[in-house]
Amino acid sequence: MSIRTAIVGYGNLGRGVENSIRHQPDMELVGIFSRRTELDTDTPVYPVADIDSYADQIDVLYLCLGSATDIPAQAAAFARTFTTVDTYDNHAKIPAHYMEMDEAAASGDNIAVVATGWDPGLFSLNRTIASSLFPTYQQNTFWGKGVSQGHSDALRRIDGVRRAVQYTIPREDAISAAREGNGHDVTGHTAHLRQCWIVADESEHDRIRDEIITMPDYFVGYEVEVHFITDDEFARDHQGLPHGGHVITSGELGESRATVEFSLTLDSNPDFTAAVQVAYGRAAHRLRESGLSGAFSVLEIPPYLLAPEPLEELLARDV
Amino acid sequence: MSIRTAIVGYGNLGRGVENSIRHQPDMELVGIFSRRTELDTDTPVYPVADIDSYADQIDVLYLCLGSATDIPAQAAAFARTFTTVDTYDNHAKIPAHYMEMDEAAASGDNIAVVATGWDPGLFSLNRTIASSLFPTYQQNTFWGKGVSQGHSDALRRIDGVRRAVQYTIPREDAISAAREGNGHDVTGHTAHLRQCWIVADESEHDRIRDEIITMPDYFVGYEVEVHFITDDEFARDHQGLPHGGHVITSGELGESRATVEFSLTLDSNPDFTAAVQVAYGRAAHRLRESGLSGAFSVLEIPPYLLAPEPLEELLARDV
Repeated sequence: MSIRTAIVGYGNLGRGVENSIRHQPDMELVGIFSRRTELDTDTPVYPVADIDSYADQIDVLYLCLGSATDIPAQAAAFARTFTTVDTYDNHAKIPAHYMEMDEAAASGDNIAVVATGWDPGLFSLNRTIASSLFPTYQQNTFWGKGVSQGHSDALRRIDGVRRAVQYTIPREDAISAAREGNGHDVTGHTAHLRQCWIVADESEHDRIRDEIITMPDYFVGYEVEVHFITDDEFARDHQGLPHGGHVITSGELGESRATVEFSLTLDSNPDFTAAVQVAYGRAAHRLRESGLSGAFSVLEIPPYLLAPEPLEELLARDV
Repeated sequence: MSIRTAIVGYGNLGRGVENSIRHQPDMELVGIFSRRTELDTDTPVYPVADIDSYADQIDVLYLCLGSATDIPAQAAAFARTFTTVDTYDNHAKIPAHYMEMDEAAASGDNIAVVATGWDPGLFSLNRTIASSLFPTYQQNTFWGKGVSQGHSDALRRIDGVRRAVQYTIPREDAISAAREGNGHDVTGHTAHLRQCWIVADESEHDRIRDEIITMPDYFVGYEVEVHFITDDEFARDHQGLPHGGHVITSGELGESRATVEFSLTLDSNPDFTAAVQVAYGRAAHRLRESGLSGAFSVLEIPPYLLAPEPLEELLARDV
C-alpha cells in the first residue's frame, strides 16, 4: 500500500519535496498545507489550521519549514499528531530539538525523524561512520561551490551594486591538505575562497571592489575574487542554487594511512535536500509500522529503510 | 565494561584486527585462535579446535578467514556459538551466506554481521543510500589504485620476469564522465588502466612488453602501462598493499543534477578492512545486548552503533 504523504510549507524545499514524491514508486501526495490557499500547483492545497482533521489520511508529514523560527515554533505540535520528517539545520540546537521532538512524537505514538538533508544529514552520517574507523583522525568539512545568501546580501547593500551573488568555494590546496592528513592546519579562512559576481556601472567597479575586499567579517582574511559581468550574463549564469561539499577524514591505522571522503555536487541545494528528506520519510513510515515511536536522527536509522526496494533485492544488488 | 573480543585466523587481516582492537577504548582482546600454535604475537594464542570451551569468555569473534574456502566451510559453525563479524567478499554469494549465517546465529542466540569491510561493506552502504535518493540514476564503482593479485601473478608467469606487480588504476576520464552523469558509457575496459612494474634483464624488456600487451583477458582491450625498474626500486616502492576506489552516483532531481561520491584512498587494504570489521564488532555486541539475534548486513545496522561514543555525544559533535 502506498505511503500517504503531505507537506507543510511551500517554498523551494516544499516544491522539491512535492516533485520528489511524484517520482516515488511507493508514495502518494495527499496535499499541501499552507497559510496561503492560492499556490501555483496541481496538488490539493488545504489551510494548515485544519491539518489535525486529516490525521487519519496521512502517514508521513514533511515539515518544509524554515529552521530560524518556524521549526522551533511549530514542529513539536505537528509531531504530536503526525509522523514527521524535518530538515532542521541549526547544528548547535539539534540536541535540544531532538529532545523536544522525541517527547512530542512519543506522546502521539508517532515517529519524528529530525535534521535530515545533507548537512546536517548525509554529512553527519559520514562524519560518524568515518570517525568510528580511526583511533585518531583529522576530519574536515568543506562547503561549496555554493551560494552564500548572507554574503550575497552584503554585496547587494554596497552602493551602486545592481545585482550580486557570492559563491563560497573550497580551496583546492585545502582539500589536498585534508586528503593527505594535514587538515589540522586548515581554518575557516584558508578552507574557502569567496567568489563575487557583480552587475554595476563600469565607473564604479574600482570603488566597489575596494569596498568588498575591505569589508570586515564577510571578506577580510579570505581569498576573494571579484568579477564584474553584464545583466545578461548574470541572468544566464547565476540564477541557480548550486551547493555541495566534502567531508574528508584521514587517519593512521597501524603503519598506514587511510582517507575517507564523501562529496556532493548539487545543481540545486533545495532539490537535493528534498530528495534526502523524502527518502527518510520512507524510513519514518517503516519505523512507525514496526511499532516504534519517538525521535530518530539519521545516525539511528538502518540505511536499507531509505530504499524503495526490499532488503533482499539490495543484498543482491548493492552488497 | 569492555567488549571481550577474539580473532580466528592470523593473516594480514587478522594482524590488522589485532592492531585495531589494541586502539579501541572499549575492547579487550582475549586471544587469537589458529591452527598454528606458533604465531609472532604477544597476544595469547589458542588452538582453534578448542574454541568452543572459551564461549563464555568472548563477546565478539572476528572471523579473519579467507572468502574462497574458509568462510563457506567454517563460518556457520562459529556463528552457532559466538557473535561473529566477517568480511566475506564473494558478492554473488552474499545472499546465500547471509541466509546460512542467519540460521546459525539465530540457533545460538547470537548476532552474525556479514560482509563488512569496504567492498562489500562501506561501498555497499553508499550504493544503497545514494541510489535511494534518485528516481533514476547512473552508478559506477571504480577500484584502485590497488594491487591486483591475479594480474600480478600473470606477469610473474612470463619468462624472464623476476619481480612484478600490477596496479589497477581508475582512469580520470572515466571518473569525470561518471561525475557528470555519463557513466553509462563506462565499461570494465574503459574504467581502469593497468599499470605494470617489472624487474627483468634489459635485453628482455621488448619481448616482455609484447607478451604483456598481447595477453588476452588480462591486458588486451585495456590501457596498459609497462614500467621496467631495478630490484632496489621495486623493494623501495612496491611492497605495500594500497587500494581504494570511488562509488559515484549521479542523477536528475527535477530540473537539476546531483552527484554523490564516496571515495577511499588506502595505504593498506587489509588494515582498513580490519578497521571496518572491528567497528562492526562493536555494533554486533550492542545488537546482541539489546536482545536481538540472527544475521545483519551493513545495510541494517544503525550507524551510531559503530562509534565508541554515546549517541548524545555524536548528536552534539557530528550532526
